[in-house]
Parts: sequence; C-alpha cells; structure tokens
Amino acid sequence: MAMPEWRKDPVTGLWLIIAPERAQRPQGEQTIERCPFCAGHEVDTPPEVFSIRAVASSPNTPGWDVRVVPNQYPAVVNRAGAVPAPEPFYLSMPAQGAHEVVIESPDHLENIASLEQYQLLKILTAYRQRMRELSKDERWRYLLLFKNQGIGAGATLAHVHSQLMGLTIIPSEAEREIDGAQDYYNRTGSCVYCEMNALEVSAGKRIVDANQDFLTFCPYASRVAYESWIVPRHHESLFTTSDDASVHNLARPLSHLLRRLDRALGGLQCNYVIHSGPPHLGDNPFYHWHMEVLPRVVQQGGFEWGSGSYINVVRPEDAAALLRGVDPN
Amino acid sequence: MAMPEWRKDPVTGLWLIIAPERAQRPQGEQTIERCPFCAGHEVDTPPEVFSIRAVASSPNTPGWDVRVVPNQYPAVVNRAGAVPAPEPFYLSMPAQGAHEVVIESPDHLENIASLEQYQLLKILTAYRQRMRELSKDERWRYLLLFKNQGIGAGATLAHVHSQLMGLTIIPSEAEREIDGAQDYYNRTGSCVYCEMNALEVSAGKRIVDANQDFLTFCPYASRVAYESWIVPRHHESLFTTSDDASVHNLARPLSHLLRRLDRALGGLQCNYVIHSGPPHLGDNPFYHWHMEVLPRVVQQGGFEWGSGSYINVVRPEDAAALLRGVDPN
Repeated sequence: MAMPEWRKDPVTGLWLIIAPERAQRPQGEQTIERCPFCAGHEVDTPPEVFSIRAVASSPNTPGWDVRVVPNQYPAVVNRAGAVPAPEPFYLSMPAQGAHEVVIESPDHLENIASLEQYQLLKILTAYRQRMRELSKDERWRYLLLFKNQGIGAGATLAHVHSQLMGLTIIPSEAEREIDGAQDYYNRTGSCVYCEMNALEVSAGKRIVDANQDFLTFCPYASRVAYESWIVPRHHESLFTTSDDASVHNLARPLSHLLRRLDRALGGLQCNYVIHSGPPHLGDNPFYHWHMEVLPRVVQQGGFEWGSGSYINVVRPEDAAALLRGVDPN
Repeated sequence: MAMPEWRKDPVTGLWLIIAPERAQRPQGEQTIERCPFCAGHEVDTPPEVFSIRAVASSPNTPGWDVRVVPNQYPAVVNRAGAVPAPEPFYLSMPAQGAHEVVIESPDHLENIASLEQYQLLKILTAYRQRMRELSKDERWRYLLLFKNQGIGAGATLAHVHSQLMGLTIIPSEAEREIDGAQDYYNRTGSCVYCEMNALEVSAGKRIVDANQDFLTFCPYASRVAYESWIVPRHHESLFTTSDDASVHNLARPLSHLLRRLDRALGGLQCNYVIHSGPPHLGDNPFYHWHMEVLPRVVQQGGFEWGSGSYINVVRPEDAAALLRGVDPN
C-alpha cells in the first residue's frame, strides 16, 4: 500500500492529507448481509485492538458490545514510510499515525441516537481506553476522535461507528483553539472555558442541559445551526484522565443531546468531535476538554470556502430554547 | 428586518455571521414557473443594480443576458444597524455589507458548464463591473465573489447564479492567504503565486490547461478531489483591474475547466471563488488574484471539523491527468 502523505500549502501553511487508497472504500448503501461492522462479520475487518465483550467470548468472534479495529482504508498509517521525493518550493511528509474504527454496536443500527445510555457508556469507555493507549506513544502529538453520523455527514458505512486518529502534528483547528485558550490564560489568568461555563450558567438562555459534571449549551458563536457543546464543569485538560464516575455522568447528557437533535431535526445527520488537549502538554491550567456536536442542516458553500467563516441561520439562543423543549427520554 | 450580526468565538477568534432571516429562503426544487431568476419574473427579485441587456430594453424587464440584484435574504445588509446589546466576555457587531446576486442566464439553466463562452464573458464582465463599483465604498474591506453550483454545493435556487459580498472585515481564510503571501514576499522578494506558476509550468504534471494569460492547474496541496485553480500568468493583485482582453482570455479556460469537471465527474456540483486582494491594498507586489474551483465529490466530516484540515483521496497529479484527457469542447 502506498504511504499517504501530508502536503503543505505554500501560501496558507495548511497541512492536509493526500490518501489515494481511501478512494477504494466501499461507498453508498450496504446491505446488512455485507456490512463488515455487524457481529458475525468480524473476519471482514482487521483484527481488533480492543473490545468490550462477554467474558466467555474470544477476540474477533461475536460476543462483543463495542469493538475497535484498525481502519482498513487509513488516512494515516502506523509505520515509517518513505519521504516523498522532495519538490522544490513544496513541502511534504509521510502521513504516519494511528487510524482506528470504534464499532459502536454489534447490531446493524444506523443512528447513534437510538442507543441506550448503558451502551453509550461502553462506547465512551472504549474511546477513553484507546485514547489512553495511544497517549503512550510519543509520536502522536494529537488525538482526534470523531463521528460521522449519516451519509450527509461524511459516513461511508452506515453501521454506527466513530474514528480515532493519532497524528504526528497538531492540526490547524486544534492549534487555533489551544493557542486561543493559552493566550486567554496569559492575559487573564483564567481558563476561557471555565469562564464560558460560568457565563452560560448565569445567562441561561443558551443552556440545553446540565448535571453536576457537565453543561450542554449552544455556543455563542455557533458555526452551524443547532451546534451544541458538552463541557465538563470542573477544569480538566484531557478526556483521557476522566474518572469512571465522570464518564458515567457524560453518557446521560450525550444521549439526551443526540435524542433531542434527532427529534428536533427529524433525523440525525451530524458530526461530533472530542476536543482533548495534546497528550504531551498533560493537564494544564489553560486547556479544557469538551465535546462539540455539529448537526448538518444547511449545506455549506462558496462563502465558507472563500472566507473560512460561516453563515448560521439559527440563533444559538433559539436553538437552545427549541432543544430544551424536546423530551430526550 | 432584524440586523444580522457578526459574532466572535472567544477561544479561536473566528468571526461568523448569525443571520436568522436567511432561514426564510425558499428551499429545494423550484418549478420554472416559480423561479424568481427567470426572464419575465423580474418582479420577484429586488430591482436590479446592473444588467447586460439589449439597448432597447428597460431595467427590470426581459431583454437581459446577465442581471445583478440585491440578495433578498442577505447575510450582510447595506445599512448601519443597532449594535447588539453587549454581553460580557462575548464580542459582536452588526453585519453591515453588500450582498448581491448575479443571475447568469435569462433561461432556466441549472448547470454553469452548459453556458457558452460568450455568455461566460458577459458574466465575468458583470463580476468585474460590480466588484469595481463596490470597491469605491471604503466600508468594504474585502469582496467575496462565489458560486454554489448544485444543491450539493450549497445552492438553494437551482437557476445559475453567483453571489457577491462586500464585507467590513477581511475574513479569516482570506487573511491567512494574504498574510502568507505577504510573508513569502518579505522572505524572498518574490510573489508566491508567480513562483508557483513557474514551478507548475516546469513540472507540467499538475497542469490542466494554459493560454497566454492564464494557467489552470490542480494545486499541489489540493484540499478536495479535482480542486483546480485558474491563475493569471502575469502578476496582478486585483481582479477588478483586469483589462477587457484579459477577461476575454479568462472565459475560455473557465468554460473548459467547468466542462472538463462536468464530464469527468458525471455532473457538476462545485463552488468557485474569486480570490482578489483587498481593495484598499490596491495593486501590490505580494498578492496575486486567482480563481479557485472546488468540486464536491466527497462529503466532508468530523475529521475536517476537528482538525481544520482535509483528507483528499485523489492525488492532484492524477486529477490533472484525468482532466487533461477530457475534451472540453
């Protein structure tokens, strides 16, 4: 298999991945009979690296609730690769990394909002476990856990799953966020997310849900309609250091938010991303991990490409009011 | 009508637009009978600000080839508005600006690739004319001309059209590009796009088309499959200062590129954006205007949201080879 490569835009400095092998991924609708993520089809994926399964069952056989396997069509690969032939003026490097798939149900379910809280707890536990494992490898400077829910949100296989990548660089959006938080801390001595939590609680109008450990709100500068964040109420930089009680208390607001979005929007097409600090920075006073959920309601267009900005047609205050009114049970 | 507003993300510093009025836009398929952009339906749009039309015809009646009208559902509005009530911690400002629609055919055509070169020449002339006009207003710090071709590329009305915005801020993507070009110039004394042109001509493998005034190539760091740029071969910062001969020589490679993409990809869903320097910077040695054409082949997902980066599954060298092989006539 050819090594995927990172290439750098000579004007903007943006690094992006060229990964031709991924073009061979199966596309479009799959029948259950051919779905590689269904229990009983374990042979159709690479061997598992982690699973939550019945004690009596063996790896790579049925009996699992959540299963993690290497991505068969990786955008980054876990081996040293040849550096692409240098071109004058242009920069490139091998796209080394980890790229795993978290298969989130043994049954052929296609909507993450249909899962029960106890299953979400297992899924979150699997995320934390694999992110903890990848954190031990110093080559990975950033861990990116994301879900594509629905074909319209970029999924190529419909069976519920998420992806976890270990990257050798901190990607630009993560860097912008981390630098922004660091800068805010340098100016004020406070964590910008802790400040935001306090302000959102006191304003109230953008809050969707709250429990003792987590706040769910539509952010003031929502990029897309019904964008919602789940933010820990206590300062913590890394998702990987969350204790069991905290992960348990995350399953409920995550389930509730996904169900609210599913019901309010008449079906769920969304992405979610766990924003966790770079492992090598460890716990620090400026960065605060959280989850961002981005529904796909409006197709983005030339404005977004040309400006790097967004036009959101739903005020986050209105989005939060609507979501609060939906029964999540 | 409520004033749309710019809001600033307190962590990343990104400015984005909240424009609830745009939610009232007509969505989905329109019949020709109800299309507001068809000749004979001039009354269904705001009065035109420019048109290319038969001498004997009157404004806002049939007889036009290209017609420019204010956007009925603007994301930015051309009047001073109330500053939103300040919130502690969060920044906002009224989204003042110009937002126009360029209606690119009197007939109900839905694919820009189906237009003849002489019609594209009229369209480009209209772009230049309106951008020249908006450049006179010092409030607009950046002009953004973009097309959404196809529902999958963000179009809400199918009839061929583009949009032109005059913005009071330089948006982040434009800023990143302009700053990158300025930085390259400061380091090397050269324009980064002039260097790129020379390298692409000598490498050859990413070139799709060339004439005496313009190069068409798939950029080395293509963000999406079949991304293609049309770049003037002579250094010029602003599209608005292009002379008639140059605009004439742009219509042909633009027509050819759109037809190649349409045929190679089996239908055209794409965005294009004119990247022209900020009017107040005028012609300068570091910025070089160009067009970027971004086909929509792969749905973007959580990787892009979480990283701000892209995974492109088609090498630009392969994309260029494929496009070169397509007959554009």
